[in-house]
Amino acid sequence: MSVPERMSGVLTPVVTPFGNDLAPDAKRLTEQCRWLLAQEVGLAVFGTNSEANSMSVDEKIELIDRLLEAGIDAARMMPGTGCAAFTDSVRLTSHAVNSGCSGVLMLPPFYYKDVSDDGLFAVYAEIIERIGDARLRIYLYHIPPISQVPLSLPLIERLITSYPETVVGIKDSGGDWANTKAMLDAGWDDFRIFVGSEAFLLDNMRNGGDGCISASANVNPAAILALYHKWDDGDGEAMQAGLNDVRERFIQFPMIAALKAGVAHFSGDPGWAQMRPPLVALDAGQQAQLQKSLEDIGFTMDGLGAGK
Amino acid sequence: MSVPERMSGVLTPVVTPFGNDLAPDAKRLTEQCRWLLAQEVGLAVFGTNSEANSMSVDEKIELIDRLLEAGIDAARMMPGTGCAAFTDSVRLTSHAVNSGCSGVLMLPPFYYKDVSDDGLFAVYAEIIERIGDARLRIYLYHIPPISQVPLSLPLIERLITSYPETVVGIKDSGGDWANTKAMLDAGWDDFRIFVGSEAFLLDNMRNGGDGCISASANVNPAAILALYHKWDDGDGEAMQAGLNDVRERFIQFPMIAALKAGVAHFSGDPGWAQMRPPLVALDAGQQAQLQKSLEDIGFTMDGLGAGK
Repeated sequence: MSVPERMSGVLTPVVTPFGNDLAPDAKRLTEQCRWLLAQEVGLAVFGTNSEANSMSVDEKIELIDRLLEAGIDAARMMPGTGCAAFTDSVRLTSHAVNSGCSGVLMLPPFYYKDVSDDGLFAVYAEIIERIGDARLRIYLYHIPPISQVPLSLPLIERLITSYPETVVGIKDSGGDWANTKAMLDAGWDDFRIFVGSEAFLLDNMRNGGDGCISASANVNPAAILALYHKWDDGDGEAMQAGLNDVRERFIQFPMIAALKAGVAHFSGDPGWAQMRPPLVALDAGQQAQLQKSLEDIGFTMDGLGAGK
Repeated sequence: MSVPERMSGVLTPVVTPFGNDLAPDAKRLTEQCRWLLAQEVGLAVFGTNSEANSMSVDEKIELIDRLLEAGIDAARMMPGTGCAAFTDSVRLTSHAVNSGCSGVLMLPPFYYKDVSDDGLFAVYAEIIERIGDARLRIYLYHIPPISQVPLSLPLIERLITSYPETVVGIKDSGGDWANTKAMLDAGWDDFRIFVGSEAFLLDNMRNGGDGCISASANVNPAAILALYHKWDDGDGEAMQAGLNDVRERFIQFPMIAALKAGVAHFSGDPGWAQMRPPLVALDAGQQAQLQKSLEDIGFTMDGLGAGK
């Protein structure tokens, strides 16, 4: 049994298309994944920006199966598998491992707040022990602005110490560079540190980090990957400024709806704009504003929609 | 097909027992439900204090089935059925309706934050339309300190206006009496308003409210029910003060763990103290402090554990 390599580079929480009936659309998702893989962007499907927590475990298992059937490479997949109930996390994570995914991105349980590090450690330990598979590679998911359940440095260190071959990285979406820097400085052996926004990508690479898992990589993959590869070539600051400019044109709107509006526009497939409640699509005025803002800088998504 | 009466009175989010293997324990739960029903307390199983969001939909469906098989009266049940994914909410709610439960207590989706009223309305509407059953009675669940997703008064009014026979009440666990009072003053026809803490029970009854759905009713049901029945008999203030005193002895500790420690102690069944991660049990020192604090006022849970 081969075990997965630890991941690095640029990944994206792939936006999830839904039909008019609000069902996940595996065909459109497959097309999007193919386009992203062609840009060398890894597939952190079922992230926050994938509306993953608006889908049931069964819906997510079905999507994994459909992607693999369509030939998407499991080695490039890091699905989000952390649920409110650890029994759900076990079921979904097991499926990802058995499907050959290189890793999983795991939220802590996110309903109860002010939980202790002991309690969070117990959840991750329970999941790891129940799965009991040497192929399991967990990337922790720290996103306190949304989960409202932060992962402290002592907790992370305790998990790495207890499960050094399983707890192998983190996505830091806290938006607080000092926290990322503290992890980079912690000296954890081969622990993969991804920033959750490409706005911190240059800083992360300069400090020995491993890349980013960024929502914007759904729409701006090539430029983000270019900075990942060339951050030390002398143009890093200018490349970072370019990424930030694109990012800011999206985040002036609700981010997930804006990403999907972008994909809808550049693919010529308006169905992509469909959101699953409780999130809502941009209205016509917002869509027009976003398009105008992107046209102002000549932004495009080359090759999108070509596979239809 | 008969439709359920709208509910009122005292209900409790029944604490959920777990075995050493962390599996829900239907037998212990049945005993607890019998004891509560004997005290005339209704069963809001799968509430926040039931650790409901640490259980999968399948686990909750199984528990409903086991309770009904054991003869627990579905007419006295208001299970919590609101999940992060509306497809899960539909599945669990359908099961509750088909099982004959008088109502369901429904959280909004709780992962995404800062969602719009339009988005929250769309979720509730989608659930109601998909279930499409005249027996469905939804009690909304407003608990912003934990869900971090408040239900605004305009949203509630819009739901009542659109689904007057389905959206029939609310549990307000916001801890803000002004919000409860604003709902009581809104003039919504026969809309059942429950406070989420018995600390507001006297105020709620004086202002035309319908009772409480309170964690403390797991341990102090008779006294809470007494205030519900006798709030206008002249001793209301003293009865409320008595309830508050007991409540404060529990909430000096993490509440759910303290409730289970209380049940464990007074039933003589230490297994009741087991928590499901990420929540953790009281340590030995906390348990001793809690017991001492309850002995100081001669607090007991009469008849608990007698059914074993």
